[in-house]
Amino acid sequence: MRNVSVRISDGRIEEIGALHPIPKDDVIDCQHRLLIPGLVNTHTHLAMTLFRGYADDLELRDWLEKKIWPLEKKLSGKMCHDGALLASLEMTRTGTTCLADMYFHMEDVAKAVDRSGLRGFLSYGIIDPRDESGREHERNNTLALLKHIASMNSPRIKFMVGPHAPYTCGEEILLWSRELAEKEDALIHIHIAETRGEQVSFEKDKKQRVVDYLDKIGFLYDGVLAAHSVWLTKSEVTLLGKRGVRVAHCPVSNMKLAGGGVAPLPEMWESGVSVGLGTDGPASNNSLDMFDTMKICALIHKSYRWDPTIANAQRVFDMATIDGAKCLDMEKEIGSVEVGKRADLALLNLKDPNLIPIHAKETVVSDLVYSANGSNVDTTIVDGKALMLHRKPTLLDPETIAESVSRSVSQLISS
Amino acid sequence: MRNVSVRISDGRIEEIGALHPIPKDDVIDCQHRLLIPGLVNTHTHLAMTLFRGYADDLELRDWLEKKIWPLEKKLSGKMCHDGALLASLEMTRTGTTCLADMYFHMEDVAKAVDRSGLRGFLSYGIIDPRDESGREHERNNTLALLKHIASMNSPRIKFMVGPHAPYTCGEEILLWSRELAEKEDALIHIHIAETRGEQVSFEKDKKQRVVDYLDKIGFLYDGVLAAHSVWLTKSEVTLLGKRGVRVAHCPVSNMKLAGGGVAPLPEMWESGVSVGLGTDGPASNNSLDMFDTMKICALIHKSYRWDPTIANAQRVFDMATIDGAKCLDMEKEIGSVEVGKRADLALLNLKDPNLIPIHAKETVVSDLVYSANGSNVDTTIVDGKALMLHRKPTLLDPETIAESVSRSVSQLISS
Repeated sequence: MRNVSVRISDGRIEEIGALHPIPKDDVIDCQHRLLIPGLVNTHTHLAMTLFRGYADDLELRDWLEKKIWPLEKKLSGKMCHDGALLASLEMTRTGTTCLADMYFHMEDVAKAVDRSGLRGFLSYGIIDPRDESGREHERNNTLALLKHIASMNSPRIKFMVGPHAPYTCGEEILLWSRELAEKEDALIHIHIAETRGEQVSFEKDKKQRVVDYLDKIGFLYDGVLAAHSVWLTKSEVTLLGKRGVRVAHCPVSNMKLAGGGVAPLPEMWESGVSVGLGTDGPASNNSLDMFDTMKICALIHKSYRWDPTIANAQRVFDMATIDGAKCLDMEKEIGSVEVGKRADLALLNLKDPNLIPIHAKETVVSDLVYSANGSNVDTTIVDGKALMLHRKPTLLDPETIAESVSRSVSQLISS
Repeated sequence: MRNVSVRISDGRIEEIGALHPIPKDDVIDCQHRLLIPGLVNTHTHLAMTLFRGYADDLELRDWLEKKIWPLEKKLSGKMCHDGALLASLEMTRTGTTCLADMYFHMEDVAKAVDRSGLRGFLSYGIIDPRDESGREHERNNTLALLKHIASMNSPRIKFMVGPHAPYTCGEEILLWSRELAEKEDALIHIHIAETRGEQVSFEKDKKQRVVDYLDKIGFLYDGVLAAHSVWLTKSEVTLLGKRGVRVAHCPVSNMKLAGGGVAPLPEMWESGVSVGLGTDGPASNNSLDMFDTMKICALIHKSYRWDPTIANAQRVFDMATIDGAKCLDMEKEIGSVEVGKRADLALLNLKDPNLIPIHAKETVVSDLVYSANGSNVDTTIVDGKALMLHRKPTLLDPETIAESVSRSVSQLISS
């Protein structure tokens, strides 16, 4: 639609049309701007901004074991807070309004996301140490996050249960996670089948494929958000669909770490799986710009299938908006510009040269996926509140964040 | 290097080090900025900005025959001038300082590129109509461009001979092109083996593979810049290396049009082929941001080979700078920040959140390839002249360009 206005009231879209401002209205000038739903990043690790660019172009195992894990052991709550603030600033600047995170020191991350004004689904990443006292520790960390988020009483911050992956968590923790999720009416955030190597060793160990295993123990249901889901058979994809499992597809990270293959996106769609898009953490991407992820998603599937019609612009844009919302049970609240929905929105500047020309209403989505990037976002709004207005962040101070991240990184690397 | 200054004199880098300004110096503040060589885009069709977003997600044949070719027939010189100005503006804003273009109405394109201050290698795209009067027309258009560029007397604008492709040009035109190139000491710009379909039908027709054919007729030598070069056998790649042919690799366009396969980049390197990067035209990308192309280049080769160490950040950055310069015989003049070279440079803003943190001097190239995008470019310099200074274009006026492109597009679509 052209030349329309949107009236927001109490954080929701009240009216869309040819409107005239009334005295109490606070007006954002949208001339030459394109209004889109805020983007939904369904899988990330915010605090990993601290590791951005630290160790690239490495074998996955070397990357994790020699580079990432040793540093992660040294992370403090304060460091994760600073890293998450930087990530939130980057997301705000690139039109993302909602994210699903999994990491450590999550109470500190929750504080950062709340302060940024973004909408966040936050989980503590449970790594099962395979002994009872260790499991107790992981369960306690999860429950502490649950309690902390409840005490924050923020309508924008939600709790998820985060068993890291079937190869890092035993059956007991997986089932405990499922029980807790149902009891608390929360979703589960987990990594599934990220690489071929991981799958081969899982199958060797358990004598069955991962999705079959998860189904057999009763873990799969429509409250599971499975990140990656790359190395799967067609029957596993069908089973994910049957159980209502949602997938957070992370094409950039999958390509960069090169764990083998490309996620079976068309098959997931055929099986009725809701598929959202995720950037993954900034150490394996290295950007949090969802426009970048949208474009690369469209490109990799076309290239992999030798079919330029696959993963078309509209489907990919839906993944980054309404389908992402579905992955988080939020499709009635966010993911599209509709009366009654929460006002989680982004405005793009149509004067930027890379968005010229606009041929027709129908082709705008092509411009968004193939030509736009996060720097075209002029204004980012969550719950009706502008977190960035005409390129200026309103809640976060870039200078302060840069300084505290710099201090955190020096501590981390030198310690 | 940190905390250094660069002195530019008469368009060249005169000194690099701890310098102090002298009265005649015009100083650009580079605090918190990263200096890189200006990026070299070795294959594009500037004026196709007019078609950006017009027809995406289509089969290549439908895209060309139903959408692009009918519009191209209606293009005027004025339209191509406007489209090329828009492209030049987008390139300036994203740190590209040198480009190789092939299209129609090239005298008008040459005017636009000259006005933008960019360095351009320009060719008229010869499509052989397979009759003598048609060929005469194409030869005349080529010679007219040659003459026009000579008359411009601009050190930044150079002529190339542009036979479009072996499947659109017969032997006579190909050999005429080679002769002209040698006589004028110019390079040849041609499309080779862009898609599998094109190669299959070429082989069916000529009973030999395209590179073998080109070699047999005596076309291949070290003055040929072959765009794409995707669907090749290993022995064809070896032959390209042996003959000194250079390649303009266009990963984004190849993925988007999905013509089959991925260019054999590691094999080209092994065979000693100089490989630069190209965006291809904005109708098949749809952006001219070389940062986007660098990242996607690194990702597609890792993904395709299941090897995260392939196409590492340094190699890809070299492709976009010094290797691109080699493709254009310009490696002694541009492509790196060195005393004596032309001052074709870009400054990036290190305060942008996506470029935080910088871990070490050695990892900066990772930040450039995986995290940066064109909007991080603060200043773009060609021959020592700032074409954009702290995000403000100095030679081009975005408003005027937007208006003239809008007029050109309306004429084109409605006529």
